Amino acid sequence: MIEDKNQQRTSLSELGEFGLIDHLTKNFKINHKSTIKGVGDDAAVLEFNNKKIVLTTDLLVEGVHFDLSYMPLKHLGYKAVMVNLSDVYAMNANPTQITISIAVSNRFPLEALEDLYAGVETAAKIYNIDVVGGDTTSSNTGLLISVTAIGEVDQEVYRSGAKPSDLLVVSGDLGGAYMGLQVLEREKEVYKVNPNSQPDLTPYSYIIERQLKPEARKDIVKLLKDLDVKPTSMIDISDGLSSEIIHLCKQSNAGCDLYEDKIPLDPQVISTCEEFNLDSTTVALNGGEDYELLFTISQTDFPKIKANPNFSVIGYMKEVSEGMHLVTRGESRIPIKAQGWKNFGD
Amino acid sequence: MIEDKNQQRTSLSELGEFGLIDHLTKNFKINHKSTIKGVGDDAAVLEFNNKKIVLTTDLLVEGVHFDLSYMPLKHLGYKAVMVNLSDVYAMNANPTQITISIAVSNRFPLEALEDLYAGVETAAKIYNIDVVGGDTTSSNTGLLISVTAIGEVDQEVYRSGAKPSDLLVVSGDLGGAYMGLQVLEREKEVYKVNPNSQPDLTPYSYIIERQLKPEARKDIVKLLKDLDVKPTSMIDISDGLSSEIIHLCKQSNAGCDLYEDKIPLDPQVISTCEEFNLDSTTVALNGGEDYELLFTISQTDFPKIKANPNFSVIGYMKEVSEGMHLVTRGESRIPIKAQGWKNFGD
Repeated sequence: MIEDKNQQRTSLSELGEFGLIDHLTKNFKINHKSTIKGVGDDAAVLEFNNKKIVLTTDLLVEGVHFDLSYMPLKHLGYKAVMVNLSDVYAMNANPTQITISIAVSNRFPLEALEDLYAGVETAAKIYNIDVVGGDTTSSNTGLLISVTAIGEVDQEVYRSGAKPSDLLVVSGDLGGAYMGLQVLEREKEVYKVNPNSQPDLTPYSYIIERQLKPEARKDIVKLLKDLDVKPTSMIDISDGLSSEIIHLCKQSNAGCDLYEDKIPLDPQVISTCEEFNLDSTTVALNGGEDYELLFTISQTDFPKIKANPNFSVIGYMKEVSEGMHLVTRGESRIPIKAQGWKNFGD
Repeated sequence: MIEDKNQQRTSLSELGEFGLIDHLTKNFKINHKSTIKGVGDDAAVLEFNNKKIVLTTDLLVEGVHFDLSYMPLKHLGYKAVMVNLSDVYAMNANPTQITISIAVSNRFPLEALEDLYAGVETAAKIYNIDVVGGDTTSSNTGLLISVTAIGEVDQEVYRSGAKPSDLLVVSGDLGGAYMGLQVLEREKEVYKVNPNSQPDLTPYSYIIERQLKPEARKDIVKLLKDLDVKPTSMIDISDGLSSEIIHLCKQSNAGCDLYEDKIPLDPQVISTCEEFNLDSTTVALNGGEDYELLFTISQTDFPKIKANPNFSVIGYMKEVSEGMHLVTRGESRIPIKAQGWKNFGD
């Protein structure tokens, strides 16, 4: 009945996820004084009676973000919470409540959803958050999970506060979740050919756990506070280091130098990259799903974090005119480009 | 690789939506003192620095909640916001912020999403809310929209506060959205047979608008305040009158008598029911998607609302031992049963 008279059709993949969000939300106006920060950071910041809270939401879609042939539902429930808590921590906030909504097809029995919710419950217990609501509906095809998280914050940290000469710091190590995914995908193919194969996944235990059961870096927010370090900017690494660095630089109107030899890699990532004939730097830059925190600090704070094994200084911020570069082991300077999580690719 | 060793399989349709949510969330514990009310009402209630806010979230799934063959995307964006605002108003709260997330397949061009967001923007403008975040991702099949709304509240109203002898009141009229859907479904079938048919939908304009462009009852919350009426309990009518009455009665531990001849029906609902050979009372009881407010008031407040055309007193609350009944025009007493929105039906 309703004809599409609009002949102009622009493919979503032309814009990519971030271009799409920017484009669709560019007309939205902020009217409430309780809205401190709207679209454009890891979370929105709201203020009620001088108390600031952060609000963030994420969708996980079967076949796009997860594959149930190797992702146990309990882990999936846990991970769906982590993905959101990571955004809360990236604001320097502490999560307090979440809602969880699912759309699920009839092919899932009740017992499957019980597993999923058991994972949510475990995450809620460990991270001390209350599950306060949600929605449950059917879908015609797969499973979709939508989580919204709320947190309390005293001093929020945005993506936009980095200054030239600030140090670029990352928690933990990178590339593990992506390499874990490569191993799982390979085993899935093996299983298709030979369902009786009993793979020994012990050599990949760390990277598989990074993929299937990531932890949001609750400890880092506390540690930075204990060390009396206030990051000048912060973001979580969900889409890959290069994508997140570009966000920080663009929103801070700055450039940066990132040192290839400083990117923290677990030995299992290095060995598995060799096995798969992949370049570990590329994996760390573009892999995504590590849920580590990337932040900048003033150089005067360097002594406070210097000896801490949780942190790696991987570069420093520069003037915007100097651009964003990866300084390779061979001392070449390569412009940083985002690949990130382009899930609108055709 | 991961075998399903659990042979027990309980179909989701055995539980229905509400049974499912209750079942899945029954183990969740509340730990934060900022959580005033968790799962189980139209919205969660949180308190930060003595300021109470409500939080609610809803999913809309293509093929389950909407059919794009007759739902224009702009209207869909508008409706997705309304569905959530209605829950906020049902807490006696005023919405201030929303987030909107979509999962969308590549078959949608950018222009389609622009239409969807234009509807969201229009709703945000009219209802004075800030759009502060969201997520955008691809899906393998259709379109899914997840909206989360936040509102401010001074005196929240729960489903659980109704007392025996309280009056049962509803805003507006009922059954329109469901009958609008019936007309649209019929025209879709006609269109399939003859794409050149030019249906005259003028006789159905009101009910089609109720389906395609519902309005959340912002005015009712304000009106009740102006009239100095504080409802003892309240819920919004998304699943049908009988389902919502059952929620109010169960959570208030009360019974009720609902009078068939008091149920407010628009003349277009009555005439279209006749045309479709449907019973208008059944449609009002089970149709859903009216987004009116159902609430109870103390009898002492009756004079304040008596003459107001926005309200219909449709019954009164009784002791729980007396059960929940529809008193028909013929003065039979029929137990009220929920049909509601059983979207897990096989």
